[in-house]
Amino acid sequence: MFQSLKRLVIGRPIATADEGHQRLSKKIALPVFASDAISSTAYATDEILVVLLLQAYVGKKAWGPIIPIAIIVCILLVIVVASYRQTIHAYPSGGGSYIVSKENLGTIPSLVAGSSLLVDYILTVSVSVAGGVLAIRTATGLGHEWAVPLCLICVVVMTLANLRGLKESGALFAGPTYFYVVMLVILICTGLYRIFVQHVGPIPESMLSEEAIEASKLTGGLGLYMLLRAFSSGAVALSGVEAVSNGVPAFKKPEAKNAANTLVVMAVILGTCFLGVSILASHLKPYRGESDGNGLGLMAEYLYNGKGFMFWATMIGTFAILILAANTAYADFPRLSSIIAKDGFLPHQFANRGDRLVFSNGVLFLAGVASILIIVFNGDISALIPLYAFGVFMGFTLSQAGMVMHHIKLKEPRWKLSLAINAVGATTTGLIAGIVVVSKFTEGAWIPAALIPVMVFIFYSIGKHYQHVKKSLAVPVGYKAQRHTHYVVVLVGKVNRGVLDAIGYARSLSPERIIALSVVQDPEEERRLHEQWDEYDIPIELHTVSSPYRELTRPVFSFLDEIDQERDDDIITVVIPESVTKVSSQWLHNQSALALKARLLYRPHTVVVSVPVHVD
Amino acid sequence: MFQSLKRLVIGRPIATADEGHQRLSKKIALPVFASDAISSTAYATDEILVVLLLQAYVGKKAWGPIIPIAIIVCILLVIVVASYRQTIHAYPSGGGSYIVSKENLGTIPSLVAGSSLLVDYILTVSVSVAGGVLAIRTATGLGHEWAVPLCLICVVVMTLANLRGLKESGALFAGPTYFYVVMLVILICTGLYRIFVQHVGPIPESMLSEEAIEASKLTGGLGLYMLLRAFSSGAVALSGVEAVSNGVPAFKKPEAKNAANTLVVMAVILGTCFLGVSILASHLKPYRGESDGNGLGLMAEYLYNGKGFMFWATMIGTFAILILAANTAYADFPRLSSIIAKDGFLPHQFANRGDRLVFSNGVLFLAGVASILIIVFNGDISALIPLYAFGVFMGFTLSQAGMVMHHIKLKEPRWKLSLAINAVGATTTGLIAGIVVVSKFTEGAWIPAALIPVMVFIFYSIGKHYQHVKKSLAVPVGYKAQRHTHYVVVLVGKVNRGVLDAIGYARSLSPERIIALSVVQDPEEERRLHEQWDEYDIPIELHTVSSPYRELTRPVFSFLDEIDQERDDDIITVVIPESVTKVSSQWLHNQSALALKARLLYRPHTVVVSVPVHVD
Repeated sequence: MFQSLKRLVIGRPIATADEGHQRLSKKIALPVFASDAISSTAYATDEILVVLLLQAYVGKKAWGPIIPIAIIVCILLVIVVASYRQTIHAYPSGGGSYIVSKENLGTIPSLVAGSSLLVDYILTVSVSVAGGVLAIRTATGLGHEWAVPLCLICVVVMTLANLRGLKESGALFAGPTYFYVVMLVILICTGLYRIFVQHVGPIPESMLSEEAIEASKLTGGLGLYMLLRAFSSGAVALSGVEAVSNGVPAFKKPEAKNAANTLVVMAVILGTCFLGVSILASHLKPYRGESDGNGLGLMAEYLYNGKGFMFWATMIGTFAILILAANTAYADFPRLSSIIAKDGFLPHQFANRGDRLVFSNGVLFLAGVASILIIVFNGDISALIPLYAFGVFMGFTLSQAGMVMHHIKLKEPRWKLSLAINAVGATTTGLIAGIVVVSKFTEGAWIPAALIPVMVFIFYSIGKHYQHVKKSLAVPVGYKAQRHTHYVVVLVGKVNRGVLDAIGYARSLSPERIIALSVVQDPEEERRLHEQWDEYDIPIELHTVSSPYRELTRPVFSFLDEIDQERDDDIITVVIPESVTKVSSQWLHNQSALALKARLLYRPHTVVVSVPVHVD
Repeated sequence: MFQSLKRLVIGRPIATADEGHQRLSKKIALPVFASDAISSTAYATDEILVVLLLQAYVGKKAWGPIIPIAIIVCILLVIVVASYRQTIHAYPSGGGSYIVSKENLGTIPSLVAGSSLLVDYILTVSVSVAGGVLAIRTATGLGHEWAVPLCLICVVVMTLANLRGLKESGALFAGPTYFYVVMLVILICTGLYRIFVQHVGPIPESMLSEEAIEASKLTGGLGLYMLLRAFSSGAVALSGVEAVSNGVPAFKKPEAKNAANTLVVMAVILGTCFLGVSILASHLKPYRGESDGNGLGLMAEYLYNGKGFMFWATMIGTFAILILAANTAYADFPRLSSIIAKDGFLPHQFANRGDRLVFSNGVLFLAGVASILIIVFNGDISALIPLYAFGVFMGFTLSQAGMVMHHIKLKEPRWKLSLAINAVGATTTGLIAGIVVVSKFTEGAWIPAALIPVMVFIFYSIGKHYQHVKKSLAVPVGYKAQRHTHYVVVLVGKVNRGVLDAIGYARSLSPERIIALSVVQDPEEERRLHEQWDEYDIPIELHTVSSPYRELTRPVFSFLDEIDQERDDDIITVVIPESVTKVSSQWLHNQSALALKARLLYRPHTVVVSVPVHVD
């Protein structure tokens, strides 16, 4: 029944041979790889405002730093994009931070990059879903109590879709991404026209919440620390920029060139739109309080004179691209964790594709952790943002640092220029990572900063463990298995059909010695068992041991130890009869047998044989 | 490490032979068996007031019905005690409701009685602990937010004490029970003296909470429905009365006579104290609001002129006897569930004594469910009371009905009088059970009313299942195990030391045929495996099957099915090499082997052999 349900929800299995690569044209590749990066225009400006209005308490002074911050973010974008163009040309088979740092910097830096990216992907899901739901709530006016349930519904739907194996089909991505970009460009153009030609003033108080009006009246001073913190929030706009460099092989030929050009187009769209939204905000002054909707929605409502068609289209576009962005992480997280698992730093389960060719364990893990974050942070995007940027910039830094080493080692044509570009990239992004963690430490940046080293330690330990096991299991030259089984012990509770079957089976193994062992709790039980033994005329020796403390494991182990002393080339075979009923009632049986089997597994030179006795 | 921790907290094992019976004198038996019943005087009056003041909204009219209700409860007590005296004489070896109804009414009624009692015991823990913590909060003035944490601490301490195996030592019980009774009698006498001799008036408004003052000003009318509901709350005073009849064998000789007399003494104490507290309440008028402390505390504070020594002694006594009452359930619940488990209606695990001679599973289950109730009902005794009385009176009813049948069947001397007494008892308590469930249905009485049938259904199904298994495993006359193993299949992933060991082991079983089976995902893997096979010169046949859907189970099963068709007297032995590492890293290995083993267990005529390969 579970199987049929699974088939209905997840779909029928897909053969390994059906795995194929689809080559993407630039027009399609752009939305596929850029949705994550471009989607951040929906919240990055807003998050700068959250810091200035709600944490710095500067009231109308908040509007001054917006355009400068946006310009610095755009310069940063240019640096990062220039840097990643180098990566694309150097790694035409796909160069994520993990691979680049593994090849150039060594294991530990690659694990740092890997952990940073995994953290980043998890937060991409949480942040994007929270942002998408916020857009819907802004449009519909649903209260904050709806945030968590709606976010979780989105996560569940995406998880099911991805367990089915969502093809990264161009059509799916192209629609919403281009739709959002078009709606955003229309909004920006409308805004610029109305501001600079029609000279409309800021959003009137009548459209603001009471909380926002209060925020507008504050008159604190603006220090460097708060400016850095606001900048750190704006820097999340760069998340997802590295996606293109991961996906180079998916481009049509010439892959590297097409990918590099797509990256530039993406950067232009991202930069322009982010700057555009920031210019609108600095003029329209969408004051906000803690529980208000997003600023984009407020500006759209104002510019389009109410919640009409254009407003709704903008909000729906915002929701759609943010969900797509979250969905990108659903492809990236399982893929990266499977690469790390294949390298032996994560449990092998993450490397196994499910029957729909999807790394199902990775999908489920991602969904689980992202849901927990959503619940803990109450589905509040502004609370999640401080956790976000650190992983993003750690990934950038290690990737660029790896490229620096790459240039030094390979010395390809024009390597000095490339090295300079990557060095600037690495330094800048490293600096930003530092700024993020310092300026937002208590707001939540401490979480990834503490988590990433822990993850690296775990990955490293797992890697060492698998190496150790592999070495230890390697076959030495001329190795022959030495021990054989001569002694079979059949564990007996009371005599029933199962016990007779197990004894029959044990005898057919033709051992040198065979003995039935029973742990009894009192003399009465012992007597009854011997009686039954005679009654059924069982042809093997019965040995009983008493267990004054009602234990099973200890008496069995002492008996086995005694046997062990008799000969040193023996593997003792312990035969356990197990009653097997329907799955639904199996929990009523064999609890002690299970515990005993688990313990026997660790006993040297001992093999456990379960002889099932089927009741039905 | 877990073992040492367990030893430290729980203590070293106790041998079965050390189980002993302590015979109790009446002086000691009274506190041991009566603490549960007598402890209800600490809250029963109060719970009547909760209904009248906070649910019926009748203000000062609340004081009229208190003494009449208390008198009716006392009459009920006389009926129940008279009835249970019959049980004690009829079942000198201990006659709980479960046993009496099993012997006289049959399986289903006994399961109803058993479920009622188990529910009753769980609620005894929740209600008594909540009441005890309320007494402490009343004395110290700690707010309601402390209720749940303090209750849970009490539950944890009692659970640990009972896992160690608390002897029902007289000293432990005698102290607090007699102390409480003495303190209560002093309070009642002081109260009566001050009311009827010194003519003190009701508690002044200055001592009441605002909420209580508001409650006092209401002027609603008092209907029959609310009176019945108030009576249902008062009827909880009878919980625990049946404890003596369970414990007859623990009394000194003549057991039945001593037990019957102890029961009467207990009833006199319980009745007198309950009536006494009710008389005080009807004169002193301890008005209360939802979140106030208990009425007993308020009256003690008033009568003793403040929170002095006598007040504290009364409250500590109240706390102590309520905790003792909860502890009674810690002995009763596991004992009853072990009896039911031995009869085959509960999983066998409940029948196993832990290494301290305690039915540990029962203790843990009780603690878990009681804690959940405390958390769900926010540690509020008044919220728990409506759930309580139904189970108590169902137990009474079935026990008395069983006695009626007993008299009809056995016709012992003076059986007609006894029958009449028990018939009155059964009818009355049955009626009360009905009143409780109707008058408190929406307040929570629906929970036991719905739960008990569900429990009966589950118990019955478990019973049927065990019966079925027992029958099915019975050895038919002349039964001989027919099938033997001729065919051994060794499952192979890649070649390592473990696989060679497993093959060596498999060969030592001297089967007719032996084959290595490997599930491969692609031709490359297949080629490599065959190469290794040649390289290590492995002397058994290698069979590879491809798994286009990356499954393991299905290809293995189809292969086994093919073999099965070759001969019909064979048990196929499947040998699985398993890497065994330290416990802490074992989760990184053999996940697929585990899943496969679980599935193979259900395959007919298949035996699974785990050959462990120890890495360290």
